[in-house]
Amino acid sequence: MGRLTVRRPVVRLAAGRTPTRRPDALAVEEPLELRVDGRPLAVTMRTPGHDVELAHGFLLTEGVITAADELAAARYCDSVDDTGTNTYNVLDVALAPGVAPPETGVERNFYTTSSCGVCGKASLDAVRLRTRFSPAGDPVRVDAATLYALPDALREAQRIFESTGGLHAAGLFTPDGTALVVREDVGRHNAVDKVLGWALLQGRVPASGCVLMVSGRASFELVQKAVMAGVPVLAAVSAPSSLAVELAVESGTTLVGFLRGTTMNVYAGPDRIVDGTADDTPLEDQRIRRPVSAHE
Amino acid sequence: MGRLTVRRPVVRLAAGRTPTRRPDALAVEEPLELRVDGRPLAVTMRTPGHDVELAHGFLLTEGVITAADELAAARYCDSVDDTGTNTYNVLDVALAPGVAPPETGVERNFYTTSSCGVCGKASLDAVRLRTRFSPAGDPVRVDAATLYALPDALREAQRIFESTGGLHAAGLFTPDGTALVVREDVGRHNAVDKVLGWALLQGRVPASGCVLMVSGRASFELVQKAVMAGVPVLAAVSAPSSLAVELAVESGTTLVGFLRGTTMNVYAGPDRIVDGTADDTPLEDQRIRRPVSAHE
Repeated sequence: MGRLTVRRPVVRLAAGRTPTRRPDALAVEEPLELRVDGRPLAVTMRTPGHDVELAHGFLLTEGVITAADELAAARYCDSVDDTGTNTYNVLDVALAPGVAPPETGVERNFYTTSSCGVCGKASLDAVRLRTRFSPAGDPVRVDAATLYALPDALREAQRIFESTGGLHAAGLFTPDGTALVVREDVGRHNAVDKVLGWALLQGRVPASGCVLMVSGRASFELVQKAVMAGVPVLAAVSAPSSLAVELAVESGTTLVGFLRGTTMNVYAGPDRIVDGTADDTPLEDQRIRRPVSAHE
Repeated sequence: MGRLTVRRPVVRLAAGRTPTRRPDALAVEEPLELRVDGRPLAVTMRTPGHDVELAHGFLLTEGVITAADELAAARYCDSVDDTGTNTYNVLDVALAPGVAPPETGVERNFYTTSSCGVCGKASLDAVRLRTRFSPAGDPVRVDAATLYALPDALREAQRIFESTGGLHAAGLFTPDGTALVVREDVGRHNAVDKVLGWALLQGRVPASGCVLMVSGRASFELVQKAVMAGVPVLAAVSAPSSLAVELAVESGTTLVGFLRGTTMNVYAGPDRIVDGTADDTPLEDQRIRRPVSAHE
Protein backbone atom coordinates (compact mmCIF):
# COMPACT_ATOMS: atom_id res chain seq x y z
CA MET A 1 0.00 0.00 0.00
CA GLY A 2 2.99 2.26 0.44
CA ARG A 3 3.16 2.82 -3.28
CA LEU A 4 -0.31 4.37 -3.53
CA THR A 5 0.72 7.62 -1.91
CA VAL A 6 4.02 9.30 -1.16
CA ARG A 7 4.79 12.19 1.14
CA ARG A 8 6.59 15.18 -0.27
CA PRO A 9 7.54 18.52 1.27
CA VAL A 10 5.29 21.32 0.10
CA VAL A 11 5.32 25.06 0.69
CA ARG A 12 1.85 26.21 1.69
CA LEU A 13 1.01 29.83 0.88
CA ALA A 14 -2.03 31.71 2.12
CA ALA A 15 -2.52 35.44 1.63
CA GLY A 16 -1.44 37.40 4.69
CA ARG A 17 0.11 34.42 6.42
CA THR A 18 3.67 33.23 6.77
CA PRO A 19 4.45 30.48 4.27
CA THR A 20 4.85 27.10 5.90
CA ARG A 21 6.62 23.93 4.91
CA ARG A 22 4.97 20.63 5.61
CA PRO A 23 4.76 17.15 4.16
CA ASP A 24 1.88 16.55 1.75
CA ALA A 25 0.47 13.24 0.50
CA LEU A 26 0.61 12.79 -3.26
CA ALA A 27 -1.06 10.16 -5.39
CA VAL A 28 1.62 7.95 -6.89
CA GLU A 29 1.69 7.97 -10.70
CA GLU A 30 3.89 5.50 -12.55
CA PRO A 31 3.93 4.11 -16.07
CA LEU A 32 2.74 0.60 -16.76
CA GLU A 33 3.86 -1.04 -19.96
CA LEU A 34 1.47 -3.78 -21.01
CA ARG A 35 2.95 -6.51 -23.17
CA VAL A 36 1.05 -9.29 -24.87
CA ASP A 37 3.12 -12.42 -25.43
CA GLY A 38 6.24 -10.30 -24.98
CA ARG A 39 5.23 -7.63 -27.44
CA PRO A 40 4.64 -4.07 -26.14
CA LEU A 41 1.01 -3.05 -26.64
CA ALA A 42 0.46 0.09 -24.58
CA VAL A 43 1.90 2.30 -21.88
CA THR A 44 -0.44 3.97 -19.44
CA MET A 45 0.29 6.30 -16.53
CA ARG A 46 -1.47 4.68 -13.61
CA THR A 47 -1.72 4.30 -9.86
CA PRO A 48 0.27 1.15 -9.05
CA GLY A 49 -1.77 -1.80 -7.82
CA HIS A 50 -4.50 -3.99 -9.30
CA ASP A 51 -2.37 -4.17 -12.44
CA VAL A 52 -3.65 -7.61 -13.42
CA GLU A 53 -7.21 -6.30 -13.21
CA LEU A 54 -6.13 -3.30 -15.24
CA ALA A 55 -4.68 -5.55 -17.93
CA HIS A 56 -7.83 -7.68 -18.05
CA GLY A 57 -10.07 -4.62 -18.23
CA PHE A 58 -7.96 -2.96 -20.90
CA LEU A 59 -7.88 -6.06 -23.08
CA LEU A 60 -11.62 -6.60 -22.53
CA THR A 61 -12.57 -3.06 -23.48
CA GLU A 62 -10.19 -3.04 -26.44
CA GLY A 63 -11.93 -6.12 -27.78
CA VAL A 64 -9.00 -8.52 -27.38
CA ILE A 65 -10.59 -10.86 -24.83
CA THR A 66 -14.11 -11.51 -23.59
CA ALA A 67 -13.46 -14.01 -20.78
CA ALA A 68 -10.82 -14.36 -18.08
CA ASP A 69 -9.65 -17.74 -19.39
CA GLU A 70 -8.57 -16.13 -22.64
CA LEU A 71 -5.50 -14.97 -20.73
CA ALA A 72 -3.25 -17.88 -19.79
CA ALA A 73 -0.88 -15.96 -17.52
CA ALA A 74 0.15 -12.51 -16.31
CA ARG A 75 3.53 -11.75 -14.80
CA TYR A 76 5.75 -8.77 -14.13
CA CYS A 77 8.90 -8.60 -16.20
CA ASP A 78 12.26 -8.25 -14.51
CA SER A 79 12.32 -4.48 -14.97
CA VAL A 80 14.63 -2.88 -12.45
CA ASP A 81 15.49 0.66 -11.44
CA ASP A 82 18.92 2.10 -10.65
CA THR A 83 19.08 0.26 -7.35
CA GLY A 84 18.25 -3.11 -8.89
CA THR A 85 14.74 -3.15 -7.41
CA ASN A 86 11.92 -4.49 -9.57
CA THR A 87 9.77 -1.55 -10.64
CA TYR A 88 6.69 -3.72 -11.25
CA ASN A 89 6.01 -1.40 -14.15
CA VAL A 90 6.10 -3.94 -16.99
CA LEU A 91 3.37 -6.56 -17.11
CA ASP A 92 3.46 -9.33 -19.70
CA VAL A 93 0.31 -11.34 -20.36
CA ALA A 94 0.08 -14.55 -22.34
CA LEU A 95 -2.98 -15.17 -24.47
CA ALA A 96 -4.61 -18.58 -24.28
CA PRO A 97 -4.22 -20.79 -27.36
CA GLY A 98 -6.55 -19.71 -30.14
CA VAL A 99 -7.01 -16.11 -28.97
CA ALA A 100 -6.12 -13.67 -31.74
CA PRO A 101 -3.45 -11.14 -30.78
CA PRO A 102 -4.52 -7.49 -30.69
CA GLU A 103 -4.25 -5.30 -33.69
CA THR A 104 -1.86 -2.45 -33.11
CA GLY A 105 -1.33 0.86 -34.78
CA VAL A 106 -3.12 4.15 -34.72
CA GLU A 107 -6.21 2.81 -36.44
CA ARG A 108 -6.89 0.11 -33.88
CA ASN A 109 -9.63 1.99 -32.08
CA PHE A 110 -11.25 3.39 -35.15
CA TYR A 111 -12.87 2.08 -38.23
CA THR A 112 -11.18 3.97 -41.01
CA THR A 113 -13.05 3.91 -44.28
CA SER A 114 -11.38 3.73 -47.63
CA SER A 115 -12.33 7.35 -48.16
CA CYS A 116 -10.01 8.52 -45.40
CA GLY A 117 -12.82 9.09 -42.97
CA VAL A 118 -12.49 9.51 -39.26
CA CYS A 119 -15.69 10.79 -37.79
CA GLY A 120 -17.99 10.08 -34.90
CA LYS A 121 -20.05 7.82 -37.11
CA ALA A 122 -17.05 5.66 -37.94
CA SER A 123 -16.14 5.36 -34.28
CA LEU A 124 -19.66 4.31 -33.41
CA ASP A 125 -19.60 1.76 -36.19
CA ALA A 126 -16.39 0.32 -34.81
CA VAL A 127 -17.90 -0.19 -31.37
CA ARG A 128 -21.07 -1.69 -32.75
CA LEU A 129 -19.08 -4.13 -34.82
CA ARG A 130 -16.78 -5.15 -32.03
CA THR A 131 -18.83 -5.62 -28.91
CA ARG A 132 -20.14 -9.06 -28.10
CA PHE A 133 -22.24 -7.89 -25.16
CA SER A 134 -25.08 -5.61 -26.11
CA PRO A 135 -26.67 -3.79 -23.17
CA ALA A 136 -29.70 -3.01 -25.34
CA GLY A 137 -31.93 -5.83 -24.10
CA ASP A 138 -30.97 -5.64 -20.42
CA PRO A 139 -34.27 -5.44 -18.47
CA VAL A 140 -32.75 -4.03 -15.26
CA ARG A 141 -34.60 -1.22 -13.46
CA VAL A 142 -32.89 1.08 -10.96
CA ASP A 143 -34.61 3.34 -8.50
CA ALA A 144 -33.65 7.00 -8.78
CA ALA A 145 -33.10 7.11 -5.02
CA THR A 146 -30.54 4.32 -5.39
CA LEU A 147 -28.67 6.35 -7.98
CA TYR A 148 -28.74 9.49 -5.83
CA ALA A 149 -26.86 7.53 -3.14
CA LEU A 150 -24.06 6.29 -5.41
CA PRO A 151 -21.75 9.34 -5.42
CA ASP A 152 -21.53 9.24 -1.63
CA ALA A 153 -21.04 5.48 -1.69
CA LEU A 154 -18.23 5.91 -4.21
CA ARG A 155 -16.60 8.65 -2.16
CA GLU A 156 -16.84 6.63 1.05
CA ALA A 157 -15.13 3.72 -0.64
CA GLN A 158 -12.30 5.92 -1.90
CA ARG A 159 -9.37 5.39 0.33
CA ILE A 160 -6.84 7.73 -1.22
CA PHE A 161 -8.79 10.67 -2.53
CA GLU A 162 -9.31 12.21 0.87
CA SER A 163 -5.61 12.46 1.47
CA THR A 164 -4.43 13.47 -2.00
CA GLY A 165 -7.39 14.89 -3.89
CA GLY A 166 -5.75 13.51 -6.98
CA LEU A 167 -7.63 10.40 -7.96
CA HIS A 168 -10.52 9.38 -10.12
CA ALA A 169 -12.83 6.63 -8.92
CA ALA A 170 -15.07 4.08 -10.57
CA GLY A 171 -17.37 1.55 -8.98
CA LEU A 172 -19.60 -1.29 -10.05
CA PHE A 173 -22.90 -1.49 -8.17
CA THR A 174 -25.88 -3.83 -8.06
CA PRO A 175 -29.33 -2.39 -8.88
CA ASP A 176 -30.01 -1.98 -5.15
CA GLY A 177 -26.89 0.16 -4.73
CA THR A 178 -24.55 -2.42 -3.21
CA ALA A 179 -20.93 -1.76 -4.17
CA LEU A 180 -19.32 -4.79 -5.81
CA VAL A 181 -15.95 -3.13 -6.38
CA VAL A 182 -14.49 0.38 -6.28
CA ARG A 183 -11.12 1.31 -7.76
CA GLU A 184 -9.19 4.57 -7.79
CA ASP A 185 -6.56 5.71 -10.23
CA VAL A 186 -4.78 8.84 -11.41
CA GLY A 187 -6.22 8.00 -14.83
CA ARG A 188 -9.98 7.91 -15.32
CA HIS A 189 -9.79 5.17 -17.93
CA ASN A 190 -7.60 3.06 -15.68
CA ALA A 191 -10.07 3.22 -12.80
CA VAL A 192 -12.77 1.90 -15.12
CA ASP A 193 -10.47 -0.75 -16.61
CA LYS A 194 -9.59 -1.99 -13.12
CA VAL A 195 -13.28 -2.27 -12.21
CA LEU A 196 -14.19 -4.07 -15.42
CA GLY A 197 -11.11 -6.28 -15.19
CA TRP A 198 -12.22 -7.27 -11.70
CA ALA A 199 -15.65 -8.10 -13.09
CA LEU A 200 -14.10 -10.22 -15.82
CA LEU A 201 -11.97 -12.12 -13.30
CA GLN A 202 -15.08 -12.70 -11.16
CA GLY A 203 -17.01 -14.13 -14.08
CA ARG A 204 -19.36 -11.13 -14.02
CA VAL A 205 -18.92 -10.10 -17.67
CA PRO A 206 -21.24 -9.29 -19.35
CA ALA A 207 -22.06 -7.13 -16.36
CA SER A 208 -25.81 -7.43 -16.85
CA GLY A 209 -27.95 -5.58 -14.37
CA CYS A 210 -25.05 -3.52 -13.03
CA VAL A 211 -24.48 0.20 -12.67
CA LEU A 212 -21.05 1.65 -13.41
CA MET A 213 -20.47 4.90 -11.52
CA VAL A 214 -17.58 7.26 -12.32
CA SER A 215 -16.40 10.27 -10.36
CA GLY A 216 -15.86 12.65 -13.25
CA ARG A 217 -17.19 13.21 -16.72
CA ALA A 218 -18.55 10.65 -19.18
CA SER A 219 -16.50 10.65 -22.36
CA PHE A 220 -16.99 8.56 -25.47
CA GLU A 221 -14.26 6.20 -24.34
CA LEU A 222 -15.90 5.53 -20.98
CA VAL A 223 -19.22 4.70 -22.62
CA GLN A 224 -17.28 2.50 -25.05
CA LYS A 225 -15.72 0.62 -22.14
CA ALA A 226 -19.13 0.14 -20.49
CA VAL A 227 -20.59 -1.19 -23.73
CA MET A 228 -17.67 -3.57 -24.27
CA ALA A 229 -18.32 -5.06 -20.82
CA GLY A 230 -22.10 -5.24 -21.25
CA VAL A 231 -22.87 -2.68 -18.52
CA PRO A 232 -26.45 -1.38 -18.99
CA VAL A 233 -26.25 1.77 -16.82
CA LEU A 234 -23.41 4.31 -16.67
CA ALA A 235 -23.68 7.18 -14.19
CA ALA A 236 -21.29 10.12 -13.89
CA VAL A 237 -20.95 12.97 -11.42
CA SER A 238 -20.22 15.43 -14.21
CA ALA A 239 -21.12 16.11 -17.82
CA PRO A 240 -21.16 13.72 -20.76
CA SER A 241 -19.81 14.66 -24.18
CA SER A 242 -21.83 14.68 -27.37
CA LEU A 243 -20.27 11.48 -28.65
CA ALA A 244 -20.78 9.76 -25.31
CA VAL A 245 -24.51 10.44 -25.58
CA GLU A 246 -24.61 9.31 -29.22
CA LEU A 247 -22.96 6.02 -28.40
CA ALA A 248 -25.18 5.48 -25.37
CA VAL A 249 -28.31 6.04 -27.46
CA GLU A 250 -27.13 3.78 -30.27
CA SER A 251 -25.96 0.98 -27.98
CA GLY A 252 -28.98 0.99 -25.67
CA THR A 253 -26.96 2.09 -22.65
CA THR A 254 -28.59 4.20 -19.95
CA LEU A 255 -26.44 7.30 -19.44
CA VAL A 256 -26.83 9.52 -16.37
CA GLY A 257 -24.85 12.73 -15.85
CA PHE A 258 -24.64 15.48 -13.24
CA LEU A 259 -25.64 12.97 -10.58
CA ARG A 260 -25.43 15.27 -7.57
CA GLY A 261 -27.48 15.45 -4.41
CA THR A 262 -30.98 14.35 -5.37
CA THR A 263 -30.88 15.46 -8.99
CA MET A 264 -29.63 13.95 -12.23
CA ASN A 265 -29.80 14.32 -15.98
CA VAL A 266 -30.67 11.25 -18.02
CA TYR A 267 -29.21 11.45 -21.51
CA ALA A 268 -30.10 8.01 -22.81
CA GLY A 269 -32.22 5.04 -21.78
CA PRO A 270 -34.42 6.73 -19.15
CA ASP A 271 -36.82 3.78 -19.15
CA ARG A 272 -34.44 1.87 -16.85
CA ILE A 273 -34.82 4.48 -14.11
CA VAL A 274 -37.78 4.33 -11.76
CA ASP A 275 -38.60 7.50 -9.86
CA GLY A 276 -39.58 6.06 -6.52
CA THR A 277 -40.43 9.45 -5.09
CA ALA A 278 -43.37 9.61 -7.45
CA ASP A 279 -44.58 6.08 -8.13
CA ASP A 280 -43.09 2.95 -9.63
CA THR A 281 -44.00 3.75 -13.19
CA PRO A 282 -41.04 3.73 -15.55
CA LEU A 283 -39.97 7.26 -16.34
CA GLU A 284 -40.97 7.17 -19.99
CA ASP A 285 -44.63 6.97 -18.98
CA GLN A 286 -44.54 9.20 -15.96
CA ARG A 287 -45.39 12.55 -17.41
CA ILE A 288 -48.59 11.11 -18.75
CA ARG A 289 -49.72 9.06 -15.79
CA ARG A 290 -48.60 11.09 -12.83
CA PRO A 291 -50.72 14.07 -11.82
CA VAL A 292 -48.74 17.27 -11.94
CA SER A 293 -48.93 19.22 -8.70
CA ALA A 294 -50.01 22.83 -8.75
CA HIS A 295 -46.66 24.42 -8.08
CA GLU A 296 -44.82 22.60 -10.84
CA MET B 1 -18.79 27.88 -33.33
CA GLY B 2 -21.76 25.62 -33.89
CA ARG B 3 -19.59 22.56 -33.57
CA LEU B 4 -18.38 23.38 -30.05
CA THR B 5 -21.69 22.53 -28.41
CA VAL B 6 -24.78 20.63 -29.46
CA ARG B 7 -28.19 20.59 -27.88
CA ARG B 8 -29.69 17.26 -26.92
CA PRO B 9 -32.93 16.36 -25.14
CA VAL B 10 -32.37 15.36 -21.55
CA VAL B 11 -34.67 14.06 -18.84
CA ARG B 12 -34.12 16.00 -15.63
CA LEU B 13 -34.93 14.17 -12.41
CA ALA B 14 -35.13 15.73 -8.96
CA ALA B 15 -36.40 13.92 -5.90
CA GLY B 16 -40.05 14.70 -5.23
CA ARG B 17 -40.54 16.55 -8.49
CA THR B 18 -42.06 15.56 -11.78
CA PRO B 19 -39.39 14.60 -14.31
CA THR B 20 -39.02 17.15 -17.07
CA ARG B 21 -37.68 17.00 -20.58
CA ARG B 22 -35.62 19.88 -21.88
CA PRO B 23 -32.75 20.50 -24.27
CA ASP B 24 -29.28 20.49 -22.71
CA ALA B 25 -26.02 21.81 -24.16
CA LEU B 26 -23.29 19.20 -24.54
CA ALA B 27 -19.62 19.71 -25.30
CA VAL B 28 -18.89 18.29 -28.72
CA GLU B 29 -16.35 15.48 -28.71
CA GLU B 30 -15.01 14.14 -32.00
CA PRO B 31 -11.92 12.19 -33.00
CA LEU B 32 -9.04 13.92 -34.74
CA GLU B 33 -6.63 11.78 -36.67
CA LEU B 34 -3.27 13.48 -37.03
CA ARG B 35 -1.20 12.41 -40.02
CA VAL B 36 2.38 13.41 -40.73
CA ASP B 37 3.24 13.39 -44.42
CA GLY B 38 0.22 11.19 -45.02
CA ARG B 39 1.09 8.66 -42.35
CA PRO B 40 -1.27 8.27 -39.36
CA LEU B 41 0.46 9.26 -36.12
CA ALA B 42 -2.25 9.60 -33.48
CA VAL B 43 -5.96 9.82 -32.87
CA THR B 44 -7.24 12.01 -30.08
CA MET B 45 -10.78 12.69 -28.89
CA ARG B 46 -11.02 16.45 -28.93
CA THR B 47 -13.26 19.49 -29.07
CA PRO B 48 -13.27 20.54 -32.74
CA GLY B 49 -11.55 23.83 -33.50
CA HIS B 50 -8.00 25.13 -33.22
CA ASP B 51 -6.89 21.85 -34.78
CA VAL B 52 -3.81 23.37 -36.40
CA GLU B 53 -2.72 24.70 -33.02
CA LEU B 54 -3.43 21.28 -31.54
CA ALA B 55 -1.22 19.63 -34.14
CA HIS B 56 1.59 22.11 -33.54
CA GLY B 57 1.35 21.70 -29.78
CA PHE B 58 1.22 17.92 -29.98
CA LEU B 59 4.25 17.72 -32.26
CA LEU B 60 6.12 20.25 -30.11
CA THR B 61 5.49 18.42 -26.86
CA GLU B 62 6.23 15.04 -28.45
CA GLY B 63 9.62 16.36 -29.49
CA VAL B 64 9.02 16.28 -33.24
CA ILE B 65 9.30 20.03 -33.90
CA THR B 66 10.64 23.01 -31.98
CA ALA B 67 9.63 25.88 -34.27
CA ALA B 68 6.59 26.69 -36.38
CA ASP B 69 8.56 26.70 -39.63
CA GLU B 70 9.39 23.04 -39.15
CA LEU B 71 5.88 22.37 -40.43
CA ALA B 72 5.51 23.27 -44.09
CA ALA B 73 1.75 22.82 -44.34
CA ALA B 74 -1.35 21.59 -42.54
CA ARG B 75 -4.56 20.66 -44.32
CA TYR B 76 -7.69 18.66 -43.65
CA CYS B 77 -8.04 15.47 -45.66
CA ASP B 78 -11.16 14.86 -47.69
CA SER B 79 -12.78 12.77 -44.99
CA VAL B 80 -16.53 12.72 -45.44
CA ASP B 81 -19.45 11.39 -43.47
CA ASP B 82 -22.54 9.59 -44.76
CA THR B 83 -23.94 12.78 -46.26
CA GLY B 84 -20.73 13.60 -48.13
CA THR B 85 -19.87 16.46 -45.78
CA ASN B 86 -16.21 16.91 -44.81
CA THR B 87 -15.84 15.86 -41.19
CA TYR B 88 -12.71 17.96 -40.65
CA ASN B 89 -11.54 15.10 -38.47
CA VAL B 90 -8.37 14.16 -40.34
CA LEU B 91 -5.51 16.66 -40.39
CA ASP B 92 -2.40 15.99 -42.46
CA VAL B 93 0.71 18.01 -41.75
CA ALA B 94 3.82 18.18 -43.92
CA LEU B 95 7.20 18.44 -42.24
CA ALA B 96 9.65 20.98 -43.65
CA PRO B 97 12.67 19.54 -45.48
CA GLY B 98 15.26 18.19 -43.08
CA VAL B 99 12.89 17.63 -40.15
CA ALA B 100 13.08 14.04 -38.95
CA PRO B 101 9.74 12.21 -38.94
CA PRO B 102 8.41 11.15 -35.55
CA GLU B 103 9.21 7.79 -34.09
CA THR B 104 6.11 5.70 -33.66
CA GLY B 105 5.27 2.68 -31.58
CA VAL B 106 4.52 2.13 -27.96
CA GLU B 107 8.01 3.05 -26.81
CA ARG B 108 7.98 6.50 -28.35
CA ASN B 109 7.24 8.31 -25.12
CA PHE B 110 9.50 6.26 -22.97
CA TYR B 111 13.15 5.46 -22.79
CA THR B 112 13.23 1.71 -22.49
CA THR B 113 16.47 0.32 -21.19
CA SER B 114 17.97 -2.89 -22.42
CA SER B 115 16.98 -4.49 -19.12
CA CYS B 116 13.29 -4.17 -19.93
CA GLY B 117 12.83 -1.24 -17.58
CA VAL B 118 9.90 1.10 -17.55
CA CYS B 119 9.91 3.20 -14.44
CA GLY B 120 9.53 6.78 -13.43
CA LYS B 121 13.26 7.23 -13.64
CA ALA B 122 13.33 6.10 -17.24
CA SER B 123 10.51 8.46 -18.13
CA LEU B 124 12.30 11.37 -16.49
CA ASP B 125 15.46 10.47 -18.36
CA ALA B 126 13.56 10.53 -21.62
CA VAL B 127 12.26 14.03 -21.01
CA ARG B 128 15.65 15.32 -19.90
CA LEU B 129 17.23 13.91 -23.01
CA ARG B 130 14.64 15.25 -25.38
CA THR B 131 13.81 18.78 -24.36
CA ARG B 132 15.68 21.61 -25.99
CA PHE B 133 14.17 24.27 -23.74
CA SER B 134 15.17 23.97 -20.11
CA PRO B 135 13.09 26.08 -17.74
CA ALA B 136 15.77 25.67 -15.07
CA GLY B 137 17.50 29.00 -15.63
CA ASP B 138 14.41 31.11 -16.19
CA PRO B 139 14.71 34.11 -13.81
CA VAL B 140 11.01 35.04 -13.87
CA ARG B 141 9.34 35.96 -10.57
CA VAL B 142 5.57 35.87 -10.10
CA ASP B 143 3.65 37.51 -7.29
CA ALA B 144 1.49 35.13 -5.28
CA ALA B 145 -1.43 37.56 -5.62
CA THR B 146 -1.13 37.28 -9.41
CA LEU B 147 -1.37 33.50 -9.18
CA TYR B 148 -4.39 33.69 -6.86
CA ALA B 149 -6.22 35.59 -9.60
CA LEU B 150 -5.53 33.09 -12.39
CA PRO B 151 -8.28 30.51 -11.76
CA ASP B 152 -10.94 33.21 -12.01
CA ALA B 153 -9.25 34.65 -15.10
CA LEU B 154 -9.24 31.20 -16.67
CA ARG B 155 -12.87 30.62 -15.81
CA GLU B 156 -13.90 34.02 -17.17
CA ALA B 157 -12.19 33.26 -20.44
CA GLN B 158 -13.93 29.90 -20.74
CA ARG B 159 -16.74 30.29 -23.19
CA ILE B 160 -18.18 26.80 -23.16
CA PHE B 161 -17.76 25.47 -19.66
CA GLU B 162 -20.58 27.52 -18.22
CA SER B 163 -23.07 25.96 -20.59
CA THR B 164 -21.85 22.37 -20.60
CA GLY B 165 -19.70 21.81 -17.52
CA GLY B 166 -17.76 19.37 -19.60
CA LEU B 167 -14.52 21.03 -20.58
CA HIS B 168 -11.00 21.39 -19.35
CA ALA B 169 -9.22 24.69 -19.79
CA ALA B 170 -5.63 25.80 -20.10
CA GLY B 171 -4.23 29.30 -20.39
CA LEU B 172 -0.88 30.95 -20.93
CA PHE B 173 -0.32 34.08 -18.84
CA THR B 174 2.37 36.72 -18.52
CA PRO B 175 4.03 37.19 -15.11
CA ASP B 176 1.63 40.08 -14.38
CA GLY B 177 -1.38 37.84 -14.96
CA THR B 178 -2.35 38.94 -18.47
CA ALA B 179 -3.95 36.13 -20.44
CA LEU B 180 -2.15 35.52 -23.72
CA VAL B 181 -4.38 32.65 -24.80
CA VAL B 182 -6.99 30.35 -23.26
CA ARG B 183 -8.22 27.15 -24.84
CA GLU B 184 -10.86 24.64 -23.80
CA ASP B 185 -11.17 21.00 -24.73
CA VAL B 186 -12.89 17.79 -23.65
CA GLY B 187 -9.35 16.42 -23.23
CA ARG B 188 -7.00 18.01 -20.72
CA HIS B 189 -3.94 17.27 -22.83
CA ASN B 190 -5.57 18.77 -25.89
CA ALA B 191 -6.33 22.06 -24.12
CA VAL B 192 -2.63 22.33 -23.20
CA ASP B 193 -1.49 21.31 -26.69
CA LYS B 194 -3.71 23.98 -28.24
CA VAL B 195 -2.25 26.63 -25.94
CA LEU B 196 1.34 25.58 -26.59
CA GLY B 197 0.69 25.22 -30.31
CA TRP B 198 -0.62 28.79 -30.31
CA ALA B 199 2.56 29.88 -28.56
CA LEU B 200 4.68 28.08 -31.14
CA LEU B 201 2.79 29.72 -34.00
CA GLN B 202 3.27 33.11 -32.33
CA GLY B 203 7.02 32.63 -32.02
CA ARG B 204 6.69 32.45 -28.22
CA VAL B 205 8.41 29.07 -27.73
CA PRO B 206 10.39 28.66 -25.53
CA ALA B 207 7.68 30.26 -23.43
CA SER B 208 10.15 31.93 -21.08
CA GLY B 209 8.64 33.98 -18.29
CA CYS B 210 5.17 32.55 -18.79
CA VAL B 211 2.73 30.81 -16.48
CA LEU B 212 0.69 27.87 -17.76
CA MET B 213 -2.55 27.45 -15.81
CA VAL B 214 -4.73 24.34 -16.05
CA SER B 215 -8.21 23.78 -14.69
CA GLY B 216 -7.73 20.30 -13.28
CA ARG B 217 -4.93 18.19 -11.92
CA ALA B 218 -1.24 18.26 -12.83
CA SER B 219 -0.15 14.90 -14.19
CA PHE B 220 3.29 13.83 -15.33
CA GLU B 221 2.29 14.37 -18.93
CA LEU B 222 1.18 17.96 -18.35
CA VAL B 223 4.48 18.82 -16.66
CA GLN B 224 6.23 17.09 -19.55
CA LYS B 225 4.37 19.28 -22.03
CA ALA B 226 5.28 22.42 -20.08
CA VAL B 227 8.93 21.41 -20.02
CA MET B 228 8.97 20.64 -23.73
CA ALA B 229 7.70 24.18 -24.42
CA GLY B 230 10.07 25.85 -21.96
CA VAL B 231 7.33 27.05 -19.60
CA PRO B 232 8.88 27.91 -16.20
CA VAL B 233 5.70 27.95 -14.06
CA LEU B 234 2.81 25.45 -14.15
CA ALA B 235 -0.19 26.08 -11.90
CA ALA B 236 -3.14 23.75 -11.40
CA VAL B 237 -6.45 24.07 -9.58
CA SER B 238 -6.16 20.53 -8.26
CA ALA B 239 -3.57 18.03 -7.10
CA PRO B 240 -0.32 17.01 -8.77
CA SER B 241 0.82 13.40 -8.97
CA SER B 242 4.05 12.08 -7.54
CA LEU B 243 5.73 11.83 -10.92
CA ALA B 244 4.58 15.32 -11.88
CA VAL B 245 6.39 16.68 -8.82
CA GLU B 246 9.49 14.60 -9.52
CA LEU B 247 9.73 15.89 -13.08
CA ALA B 248 9.10 19.48 -11.98
CA VAL B 249 11.89 19.26 -9.40
CA GLU B 250 14.34 17.65 -11.82
CA SER B 251 13.57 20.02 -14.69
CA GLY B 252 13.57 23.22 -12.66
CA THR B 253 9.89 23.90 -13.27
CA THR B 254 7.85 25.72 -10.65
CA LEU B 255 4.79 23.58 -9.87
CA VAL B 256 1.78 24.99 -8.03
CA GLY B 257 -1.24 22.90 -7.05
CA PHE B 258 -4.52 23.43 -5.21
CA LEU B 259 -4.55 27.04 -6.39
CA ARG B 260 -7.88 28.07 -4.89
CA GLY B 261 -9.05 31.32 -3.37
CA THR B 262 -5.98 32.89 -1.77
CA THR B 263 -4.11 29.69 -1.00
CA MET B 264 -1.81 27.40 -2.93
CA ASN B 265 0.66 24.57 -2.47
CA VAL B 266 4.06 24.93 -4.11
CA TYR B 267 5.57 21.55 -4.92
CA ALA B 268 8.67 22.64 -6.81
CA GLY B 269 10.59 25.82 -7.54
CA PRO B 270 9.11 28.07 -4.81
CA ASP B 271 11.86 30.66 -5.32
CA ARG B 272 10.00 32.00 -8.37
CA ILE B 273 7.01 32.98 -6.25
CA VAL B 274 7.05 36.27 -4.36
CA ASP B 275 4.58 36.61 -1.52
CA GLY B 276 3.54 40.22 -1.94
CA THR B 277 1.30 40.11 1.10
CA ALA B 278 4.39 39.84 3.28
CA ASP B 279 7.27 41.59 1.49
CA ASP B 280 9.08 41.16 -1.79
CA THR B 281 11.60 38.67 -0.51
CA PRO B 282 11.65 35.46 -2.49
CA LEU B 283 9.82 32.73 -0.64
CA GLU B 284 12.88 30.61 0.05
CA ASP B 285 14.20 33.27 2.41
CA GLN B 286 10.96 34.42 3.92
CA ARG B 287 10.66 32.27 6.99
CA ILE B 288 13.98 33.57 8.15
CA ARG B 289 13.60 37.24 7.40
CA ARG B 290 9.94 37.87 8.06
CA PRO B 291 8.85 38.30 11.68
CA VAL B 292 6.29 35.70 12.63
CA SER B 293 3.18 37.22 14.18
CA ALA B 294 1.94 36.01 17.52
CA HIS B 295 -1.03 34.04 16.28
CA GLU B 296 0.89 32.00 13.76
